[in-house]
Amino acid sequence: MPASATHVYRRSIRFADTDAAGVAHFSRLLVIVEEAVHDFFQSRSLPILDEANAWPFVSIHANYSAACRFQDEITVALSIGKMGVSSLAFSFIATKSDGTTCFDGTATLCHIDPSLHAPAPIPAKTRNALGTGPV
Amino acid sequence: MPASATHVYRRSIRFADTDAAGVAHFSRLLVIVEEAVHDFFQSRSLPILDEANAWPFVSIHANYSAACRFQDEITVALSIGKMGVSSLAFSFIATKSDGTTCFDGTATLCHIDPSLHAPAPIPAKTRNALGTGPV
Amino acid sequence: MPASATHVYRRSIRFADTDAAGVAHFSRLLVIVEEAVHDFFQSRSLPILDEANAWPFVSIHANYSAACRFQDEITVALSIGKMGVSSLAFSFIATKSDGTTCFDGTATLCHIDPSLHAPAPIPAKTRNALGTGPV
Amino acid sequence: MPASATHVYRRSIRFADTDAAGVAHFSRLLVIVEEAVHDFFQSRSLPILDEANAWPFVSIHANYSAACRFQDEITVALSIGKMGVSSLAFSFIATKSDGTTCFDGTATLCHIDPSLHAPAPIPAKTRNALGTGPV
Repeated sequence: MPASATHVYRRSIRFADTDAAGVAHFSRLLVIVEEAVHDFFQSRSLPILDEANAWPFVSIHANYSAACRFQDEITVALSIGKMGVSSLAFSFIATKSDGTTCFDGTATLCHIDPSLHAPAPIPAKTRNALGTGPV
Repeated sequence: MPASATHVYRRSIRFADTDAAGVAHFSRLLVIVEEAVHDFFQSRSLPILDEANAWPFVSIHANYSAACRFQDEITVALSIGKMGVSSLAFSFIATKSDGTTCFDGTATLCHIDPSLHAPAPIPAKTRNALGTGPV
Repeated sequence: MPASATHVYRRSIRFADTDAAGVAHFSRLLVIVEEAVHDFFQSRSLPILDEANAWPFVSIHANYSAACRFQDEITVALSIGKMGVSSLAFSFIATKSDGTTCFDGTATLCHIDPSLHAPAPIPAKTRNALGTGPV
Repeated sequence: MPASATHVYRRSIRFADTDAAGVAHFSRLLVIVEEAVHDFFQSRSLPILDEANAWPFVSIHANYSAACRFQDEITVALSIGKMGVSSLAFSFIATKSDGTTCFDGTATLCHIDPSLHAPAPIPAKTRNALGTGPV
């Protein structure tokens, strides 16, 4: 995946994503970002959670610029960012069907070895599948 | 816990529990029932999730009779029901601070041995702590 | 929709649906049932939430017979049940891709007039779209 | 609330906050931040959601430095930050009972007039209750 490439994920706002202000709850929009990241991993046949791999979010920065409402169709464009020894950053921009940006930001995941409960270098196979060489 | 005894759990409706209809989402009210069951287990020093014990919900029956809104204080009265070899039933009644019943029903949990991914007899120690003898 | 007809809804278990026991949380599986009902409404162009219509769940009965795990593909088959003056019942059976039933049950929704905060007769137009005549 | 003052909110990690990696899901930890902000508002008798006031999160920055597990007791220390015409920023640090920082960051809320669906100046009464004068 070249630096400029993006992975696109679409999904509608479901009722359980909304809150009493009538819009999608900010925390549920971040769940959609996670779904987009996982959808990207799946598209590369990369393991998300197994005996040797886990990918917790270690930081999230998000700005919300327009409300998302029940049944709105959201498109998340994900761009791969910096890859460290164990970390992998993404930037994301979410838009509604009329093209309005509703939220954007960056998310950083850390590759973990679940048996060690500790960060572990991203395997070479994964680096290759992500289309980026060693740091 | 004699058949007529109840465990009481209180908690307010948080914003993330609500939906765009302006009320607590029905699924989040069941999360409160689970919290009540876990609070009861904790009050008896019973393990909820460890290497030898897990307690998934295997059935839930709930009726919703009055809407719960953001910041409403909910009281869940939990009564222990039938205990089988591996199963444990509860009935619950949730009321608002004015005494209105907002939802009630029954929940059945199953004792699981996580290493076997299978139902396992409720340990004698747990039965005793629950105040009920062998079936 | 004749009595025997079903509406089918598919969706995978996302990471945020899971819990520390490694399976989908029972409350999140009911959110999938709600998504199936809403998907059915959308397929009939019926309003789910607007100034004149809301459809809260007023009862849910569910039995969980097999665990659903992260990335499992779930198929929910929804059958319309009894329609009352204001109420509409569904039965549902959810299966995994290997055909195993993972959960099933019934859900009853109530048609509400949001301006009155009270049950309101299901409009004739909606009854027709649901394929069922007056009670 | 002087610039250095903090509001403290405590709550345990519930089962429905966890995910299949065995830890609290990052999105649910942000829900706890929101609960802390709302708890602060309640402690000042400030309306969180009514006909004239809503306070959506317009930005969130969070770093996760230690996993939170089921039944962990979390203490969120909230500090009021910059108040703009319509915006109100908080910084937060969450610690576990052993003093470990588990996550921290900043959150910015925007005061909204729900009838206009638009940002509205923070009322003088609210500014006073927040202990901070006009910008």
